[in-house]
Amino acid sequence: MGTTRLEAFSDGVLAIIITIMVLELKVPHGAELADLVPLWPVFASYVLSFVNVGIYWNNHHHMLHVTKRVDGAVLWANLHLLFWLSLFPFVTGWMGENHFESAPTAAYGVACLMAAIAYYVLQAVIIRREGRDSVLARAVGRDLKGKLSPVFYIGGIVAAFVAPWISWLLYISVAIIWLVPDRRIEHALESAPAAASSGAPIP
Amino acid sequence: MGTTRLEAFSDGVLAIIITIMVLELKVPHGAELADLVPLWPVFASYVLSFVNVGIYWNNHHHMLHVTKRVDGAVLWANLHLLFWLSLFPFVTGWMGENHFESAPTAAYGVACLMAAIAYYVLQAVIIRREGRDSVLARAVGRDLKGKLSPVFYIGGIVAAFVAPWISWLLYISVAIIWLVPDRRIEHALESAPAAASSGAPIP
Amino acid sequence: MGTTRLEAFSDGVLAIIITIMVLELKVPHGAELADLVPLWPVFASYVLSFVNVGIYWNNHHHMLHVTKRVDGAVLWANLHLLFWLSLFPFVTGWMGENHFESAPTAAYGVACLMAAIAYYVLQAVIIRREGRDSVLARAVGRDLKGKLSPVFYIGGIVAAFVAPWISWLLYISVAIIWLVPDRRIEHALESAPAAASSGAPIP
Amino acid sequence: MGTTRLEAFSDGVLAIIITIMVLELKVPHGAELADLVPLWPVFASYVLSFVNVGIYWNNHHHMLHVTKRVDGAVLWANLHLLFWLSLFPFVTGWMGENHFESAPTAAYGVACLMAAIAYYVLQAVIIRREGRDSVLARAVGRDLKGKLSPVFYIGGIVAAFVAPWISWLLYISVAIIWLVPDRRIEHALESAPAAASSGAPIP
Repeated sequence: MGTTRLEAFSDGVLAIIITIMVLELKVPHGAELADLVPLWPVFASYVLSFVNVGIYWNNHHHMLHVTKRVDGAVLWANLHLLFWLSLFPFVTGWMGENHFESAPTAAYGVACLMAAIAYYVLQAVIIRREGRDSVLARAVGRDLKGKLSPVFYIGGIVAAFVAPWISWLLYISVAIIWLVPDRRIEHALESAPAAASSGAPIP
Repeated sequence: MGTTRLEAFSDGVLAIIITIMVLELKVPHGAELADLVPLWPVFASYVLSFVNVGIYWNNHHHMLHVTKRVDGAVLWANLHLLFWLSLFPFVTGWMGENHFESAPTAAYGVACLMAAIAYYVLQAVIIRREGRDSVLARAVGRDLKGKLSPVFYIGGIVAAFVAPWISWLLYISVAIIWLVPDRRIEHALESAPAAASSGAPIP
Repeated sequence: MGTTRLEAFSDGVLAIIITIMVLELKVPHGAELADLVPLWPVFASYVLSFVNVGIYWNNHHHMLHVTKRVDGAVLWANLHLLFWLSLFPFVTGWMGENHFESAPTAAYGVACLMAAIAYYVLQAVIIRREGRDSVLARAVGRDLKGKLSPVFYIGGIVAAFVAPWISWLLYISVAIIWLVPDRRIEHALESAPAAASSGAPIP
Repeated sequence: MGTTRLEAFSDGVLAIIITIMVLELKVPHGAELADLVPLWPVFASYVLSFVNVGIYWNNHHHMLHVTKRVDGAVLWANLHLLFWLSLFPFVTGWMGENHFESAPTAAYGVACLMAAIAYYVLQAVIIRREGRDSVLARAVGRDLKGKLSPVFYIGGIVAAFVAPWISWLLYISVAIIWLVPDRRIEHALESAPAAASSGAPIP
């Protein structure tokens, strides 16, 4: 089976997640600019989550682009990823409305951690099916980013109970790591004829 | 008419259903981990419904994959299925917020039962159009799963007024039955040239 | 320009409209079956609106299926239709929560009337572009249904201030008129080679 | 990489934005026509935002239609645009519920301004990739509309603190400027073989 409908369904879910998160930004009752000030933690959380979901969509897009066929295992690994991402509006709202207190900041990290693991699993399931010589396998290579992210998130979860601002530093760091243009799959596609058997270049 | 747009519309509706269910998980006002505890019945209901909608999407995906053409009857049978699935956020929220009391647990079973019947009807309408020798007809075969599910749901609805935990056991059992990799359509596709006229293998 | 993206966007908007209407079905606080009883007007309104949006999606699907190219005028005529349909959740909720009182019942009719007119305009814009000999023009023919619907809706709006149940009779009648399988476009497609220049068969 | 999935995701987000804005139209508790009157500022804001998002969708549709390939920079420039558009439900609701007072009217202008800038950036990123002789570059030409819009929005933001009705005049003017059929891309497509190297015709 092709990937078209898997992409369409994932696009739908990600588009809704990214959009309903903004519903946590409750319209203030006052009409002064000052009435916007108490909203800044919710807004900051929204921006971080928007970027995170954007990164997932971006990477998902690239990964599926070099995936030829999907089977039941891929469909469920994908749904598993969407499940954890679907909790983002909840943890984003909880963290934002409580001004980055310990428990909500840790909960945000847990959702991020589980989504990162789910993405890793999905990638592994696809690679197992596509083969170790596939474009995706070569593009992912040693997957430094994919392995670093969970470590940062675990650090953020622990730090939340000591100093939540450290958690934020860590969560933002992961986003920046991924925002740096990731040309691995584009490179692997271009060098596909060359068929370099060594690990793909990691930017 | 082809199936593209039917799939796109169904994907959209299913993606929204699966995502707005999470809105029933109301952000708690407190900022302690303990504030999450009262949410567990809503969360458990959400997980079950997410898995159920995921199963429907998965099966729908497989079924439409081997459907060649659709007509008005198929479009309406599909809308009928989407109608019952659209009630999932409501029954999920009602069951979760009332800690699995009798009436909400039964209502959840009714929505599941009606969706299962609607899926069965949709499948029958497509098979009638595709013919009894079609890939779908052979893949479905005797359709043990499809016939067992309503029985389990009726059992769950009745049990809800005696002991709701039995209902949950039954609802979860149906999900597990369907989660077991269902390769019928994949098998039927692979053996299509062989054209075995007997019933399709049921895992 | 082709119709793919117009269809995708319309599918998205219609899928969301049909799904968020269910959010008006507020989860009751009690856990008895009796707590569902006060919801029946909201539920009945939801069913009628679901069927109405389903009819629009169905007809839209058929119409775009025989449309070859779209231009700016078609895009805006389509957005105009989506605008009136986007008010369905509002009027459905208002009518349902007020037990079919006069003003909400009339407001529902106004939304239906405007959507029907917008659909008629969209159809006219497409036919103007496709030509009077196009498959669509022949399929639509004298368009009895399209011309009857606004009359019924105007009747319903007026009747709402006398006896709202008459409005409901009229609104339901329109839905039934359209639910009767409409094979005009399918017929026109099949008879396309025959190129009957007379009006298309109206079922 | 092709543009299909970028379009699908953007369609999803835009479809959801345009639809959840209507949720700010809260169903009134009374059942009289008079109960609709206090809703008119929310309704007027909704209409303006619906038209604005419709214009973005329309222009986005045209722009991507003549875009051949996308890379990471295009994906992120697109997400950046979607981010500012995702704030439309919030600023629309705030402006509508406060009867066009100064701060909310200015906030609406800021969201419009940032979206206009983001669209301009997205266009520039695509043109940089497609080349200065591409159909898009020629169609955009001097891009009078694109350069005028931010000026009008800045005027509207400033005017909001003096006389909000001037802001509304300016916001509506921008919408009208864009609603005037924009045939630049359609013209550029038709004259593509002629390859006029001068700026594209601006209607």
